[in-house]
Amino acid sequence: MIKVAICGGSGYTGLELLRILSGHHAVKITAVTSERSAGKSVAEVFPHLSSLQNLVYEPLVREKLLSKADLFFLALPHGASQETVHFFYSNKKMVVDLSADYRLSDPQVYKEWYGLPHNYTTTLKKAVFGLPEIYRNRIRKAKLVANPGCYPTGAILGLFPVIKNRIIDPSTIIIDSKSGTSGAGRKADLSVSFCEVSEGFKAYGIGTHRHTPEIEQELSSLAGKKISVNFTPHLLPVNRGILSTIYAQLNKKTDTASILKIYRKVYNREPFIRVLEEGLFPNIKNVTGTNFCHLGIKVNNRTNTLIIVTAIDNLVKGASGQAVHNMNIMLGLKETEGLISSTVFP
Amino acid sequence: MIKVAICGGSGYTGLELLRILSGHHAVKITAVTSERSAGKSVAEVFPHLSSLQNLVYEPLVREKLLSKADLFFLALPHGASQETVHFFYSNKKMVVDLSADYRLSDPQVYKEWYGLPHNYTTTLKKAVFGLPEIYRNRIRKAKLVANPGCYPTGAILGLFPVIKNRIIDPSTIIIDSKSGTSGAGRKADLSVSFCEVSEGFKAYGIGTHRHTPEIEQELSSLAGKKISVNFTPHLLPVNRGILSTIYAQLNKKTDTASILKIYRKVYNREPFIRVLEEGLFPNIKNVTGTNFCHLGIKVNNRTNTLIIVTAIDNLVKGASGQAVHNMNIMLGLKETEGLISSTVFP
Amino acid sequence: MIKVAICGGSGYTGLELLRILSGHHAVKITAVTSERSAGKSVAEVFPHLSSLQNLVYEPLVREKLLSKADLFFLALPHGASQETVHFFYSNKKMVVDLSADYRLSDPQVYKEWYGLPHNYTTTLKKAVFGLPEIYRNRIRKAKLVANPGCYPTGAILGLFPVIKNRIIDPSTIIIDSKSGTSGAGRKADLSVSFCEVSEGFKAYGIGTHRHTPEIEQELSSLAGKKISVNFTPHLLPVNRGILSTIYAQLNKKTDTASILKIYRKVYNREPFIRVLEEGLFPNIKNVTGTNFCHLGIKVNNRTNTLIIVTAIDNLVKGASGQAVHNMNIMLGLKETEGLISSTVFP
Amino acid sequence: MIKVAICGGSGYTGLELLRILSGHHAVKITAVTSERSAGKSVAEVFPHLSSLQNLVYEPLVREKLLSKADLFFLALPHGASQETVHFFYSNKKMVVDLSADYRLSDPQVYKEWYGLPHNYTTTLKKAVFGLPEIYRNRIRKAKLVANPGCYPTGAILGLFPVIKNRIIDPSTIIIDSKSGTSGAGRKADLSVSFCEVSEGFKAYGIGTHRHTPEIEQELSSLAGKKISVNFTPHLLPVNRGILSTIYAQLNKKTDTASILKIYRKVYNREPFIRVLEEGLFPNIKNVTGTNFCHLGIKVNNRTNTLIIVTAIDNLVKGASGQAVHNMNIMLGLKETEGLISSTVFP
Repeated sequence: MIKVAICGGSGYTGLELLRILSGHHAVKITAVTSERSAGKSVAEVFPHLSSLQNLVYEPLVREKLLSKADLFFLALPHGASQETVHFFYSNKKMVVDLSADYRLSDPQVYKEWYGLPHNYTTTLKKAVFGLPEIYRNRIRKAKLVANPGCYPTGAILGLFPVIKNRIIDPSTIIIDSKSGTSGAGRKADLSVSFCEVSEGFKAYGIGTHRHTPEIEQELSSLAGKKISVNFTPHLLPVNRGILSTIYAQLNKKTDTASILKIYRKVYNREPFIRVLEEGLFPNIKNVTGTNFCHLGIKVNNRTNTLIIVTAIDNLVKGASGQAVHNMNIMLGLKETEGLISSTVFP
Repeated sequence: MIKVAICGGSGYTGLELLRILSGHHAVKITAVTSERSAGKSVAEVFPHLSSLQNLVYEPLVREKLLSKADLFFLALPHGASQETVHFFYSNKKMVVDLSADYRLSDPQVYKEWYGLPHNYTTTLKKAVFGLPEIYRNRIRKAKLVANPGCYPTGAILGLFPVIKNRIIDPSTIIIDSKSGTSGAGRKADLSVSFCEVSEGFKAYGIGTHRHTPEIEQELSSLAGKKISVNFTPHLLPVNRGILSTIYAQLNKKTDTASILKIYRKVYNREPFIRVLEEGLFPNIKNVTGTNFCHLGIKVNNRTNTLIIVTAIDNLVKGASGQAVHNMNIMLGLKETEGLISSTVFP
Repeated sequence: MIKVAICGGSGYTGLELLRILSGHHAVKITAVTSERSAGKSVAEVFPHLSSLQNLVYEPLVREKLLSKADLFFLALPHGASQETVHFFYSNKKMVVDLSADYRLSDPQVYKEWYGLPHNYTTTLKKAVFGLPEIYRNRIRKAKLVANPGCYPTGAILGLFPVIKNRIIDPSTIIIDSKSGTSGAGRKADLSVSFCEVSEGFKAYGIGTHRHTPEIEQELSSLAGKKISVNFTPHLLPVNRGILSTIYAQLNKKTDTASILKIYRKVYNREPFIRVLEEGLFPNIKNVTGTNFCHLGIKVNNRTNTLIIVTAIDNLVKGASGQAVHNMNIMLGLKETEGLISSTVFP
Repeated sequence: MIKVAICGGSGYTGLELLRILSGHHAVKITAVTSERSAGKSVAEVFPHLSSLQNLVYEPLVREKLLSKADLFFLALPHGASQETVHFFYSNKKMVVDLSADYRLSDPQVYKEWYGLPHNYTTTLKKAVFGLPEIYRNRIRKAKLVANPGCYPTGAILGLFPVIKNRIIDPSTIIIDSKSGTSGAGRKADLSVSFCEVSEGFKAYGIGTHRHTPEIEQELSSLAGKKISVNFTPHLLPVNRGILSTIYAQLNKKTDTASILKIYRKVYNREPFIRVLEEGLFPNIKNVTGTNFCHLGIKVNNRTNTLIIVTAIDNLVKGASGQAVHNMNIMLGLKETEGLISSTVFP
């Protein structure tokens, strides 16, 4: 059994790591941190994780944690992760970082969007962007994986096949995304209180959301040239799920069936991608609690536009499930280990 | 008191007409029809309308209804409205039709999208598209108003100022709309059952929704040339509200403040439009139960794109409220009569 | 026009007072306080109240407010209201207090349940419990009305006719209540965040909720002897509404129709009570946004139990609507003024 | 691998059987029936079960199914199950019936509440009521298990320890239950449409719900005398979960800690019961998707009442999870096989 630790285990992504890893047959959770809940067992704080009675939260003391695990999941806030990642990495531990701190390869871009300098640029260069469908080979050899953001995961998986195959004009991309409220994290905040969110719907951070440079970095890399996108996130009155509706101009006349063939070819052997039949489109409800990305395609001939719809669970494929997938690849385990579960529907 | 009748008074738009008109000081509801509830009082069938104890549903028998009212609201299914509109109109009654039957001026387009021939093309020519912010003068003289669809109302109000003022390239318009479930009507249907909708979110009718030609007709008319748009509706797990996020390429470099000035100028005196301050964007929760359209604007200089967000209540500004607004104009009443109410929040 | 002021105008009950009073024809809101929003207009802070552009929040400075209004609504936290009520009352102003500070006539009981001494017991003696259906005559002459709590309103209205008429054994009363989340107030608190509340349901404060002594005080007064009740509140994943399911042993064998007759007789002329037909039971959805209390009755002969179900909107009949109703009575206005609106359904 | 078949595999309980059994290591689903979806694969009809691509729905033809499986789950409507259960049972197959047809041991009571005669009373006598916590030993030897109803499961588990130990007066029991909408089944019905349910809450079937005799049969059996209960179900605007708040008079003065000891003793070794610490009460959100029953206790000394709160997932512990638990016991498998999963939270 490989020993893993979770730094930041009382937020929604940390809880999701606990849920997934506690059902994983090849690893053992040996430590989990939480400042506010230190000293209490997970089961005591979270009745829904009642099986974790013997796992006790501890404060994040890096030196104390170091010997406890072989691989560390970091579910800490942006900024707070920089130094801790560096510490574990430089002490020869494997790290999967769920924050944004090691996702942007250019420290200048990081500074521009997050307002912080990056103090570990040498370590930053070692980080692999953890999208298995694109970077599987690099992840296999990585010791430090920067787990992608939730919005970027849905957006990039939707666009990867058609950018790579030069099907669309990458300067025309519009990504209209809608996320469940858990994407805002587990926090006391009026803006995410039930009465403000329920029966509501709004856009936020239009043109300024911090996932924009992450999306652009990856799409630019795929296109081989600098791409700017329109990215508009919205807040859905649901617990989980991101649906992204993506628009781009087609380079030449085509039809839905032909484009679907390309997607099927690219994603043929991917265990967590489902390309839906022509005429079907994803619903976030069908991926809740799973590591799947569902994907639907439509060519609108009247406007020569390709419309791509992707659905993921923001806490699973958009965070903790993908983190475990990355771990499985890093450790040479079966990729789907711990991640095969069906949606709880309805 | 002007006498008004409602044909189709037990669906969601019919109920909303009952709610609004029962608080209107210049009209009296003299008849309301429902086949399934004929013989029962409105209060008996709908406990939330407990004040309407003396208003009794009757079957829709045109000849019997004719003498009962001066103005008829028709909240009937598409197709079913054609003949009834013609009957009342040709009998010198005023008509506000909430169906799609008299919205598309070209009967060929109607046939193409609705699969039915239009049998009253002479009457069709008399119909005025009931968007007061654009057609107020025509509505004033109209005897037959085709009340706009819910999605078209939000989309056209968002685009009107910038198409009219040649600010955007109308060939690049993308309308990504999200509607509450009441938009599907009051019906027994698995697809709108609580367990299928709640905690879900999906796109539907991509590129094929019947409101597309209605949007295109009006935008083409404003632009002075034929426009095709990408229109993608989505189903929100809320009761009411449509949020439309609209994208279009700017004709020249500009900024948000300049565009907002144009919107303010165009909508300055409109009683039901609120152009929000720079940096603020609408939330459907803020317009629920009202006839308001809230509107927010963002210029994305990185992509030279204008992003417009509009929010309406699909059953009020998107249907019955706008119908009453049209009636007020047709009858020369104060435009806001019966329509001044605040959102019930939260 | 009578001048009214609202102290505490940015919480949910304060906002509801603003909504209701802005549609009231006999009063004018001359001042509204909020510490956090002082200096901003109501419309600026709350886009759903866009008509209140000229009403500006100010800090609660009692001496400054005194001359601005004839009647003061106090929507302040419990404890914070004591002194302010006394100040306005002793300065000859009319006061409707929405806090709990003047509801319990016995200062010892107040201290026991709220953990605070009552420092204005002389003023406390002048307060009238503001349940119009029971205390209309006293309210008519009152200068200080203690507006009932939301749970007590639904519970007492359900039990009043059968306690008064000695139909039930008052020692057997069980009140199982379920409230929407707005009952917890407008606040940043993890326990009312969307992700914690949505798709959840729980009981809280079993046997210890502070509305218990308020219910017991009123029922004891009606019964003419000391009554203790079982009162269990629950948190519903909805914005508004309280449904109370109430059980009590019948003193003698009877049937539903006979009991309904008693309820109809008692509530016959009440403008805001609707006793439903036999076989029908209330739904909170049918009273949302209104000052109505819907009431359904069932005699279970198998267990000789009377089951009473009441539904109110916790923010209207359970708070601000009832406060305005009390004001109307105190001022000799038409009781329903400002309070006749239909539910926004669905 | 033991071969199992599901009759009625496209309703919510059938889908839940598919979800649970597809993760079970000792059984193989060899057949699943659905009239409306016959000929299609499960994955085709239900995208959330995308792994079941090779399992194809077939019509329910008993003779054809007989040889396909060793054990049959029947998730058919009440009435429809009678004959099919008898067929498989009399053909020496093991049967777990999720309908009500074999739950009531007295055919007269069945007829009274379900309006149908029972035509297989000899088979009925062989049926064991499938509540493992009470009837484990009988289930072990059973060939036909009548899986309990969802409401009875939560109610009986809450009352079992205190009736068995003579702690309460069984003539005073009140069960106030609140169920998620999936309890109504997967169907096109206006009463369960999103717009009618969302933001609503109501009681239904007060004193007349068909689960009443099932609860009374089991409690009477435990008490050793005939018991009648007040049972009031309510409809919650959530997908899953039943919370039951249960009240009963205590036979003698006691306290919460003492009662909790009794519960712990009774449920000590039960794998699916969690007795919460004093002061904590269950939330349906903490059991969603799991086979757990959470249980909280409060003694109200002011009224000498015991208040018991239980939470289950109506589709798992209240239906399909309990059915698999029963199967595990019947087959001598590890009881928790296939049923150890954590709640997907939030």
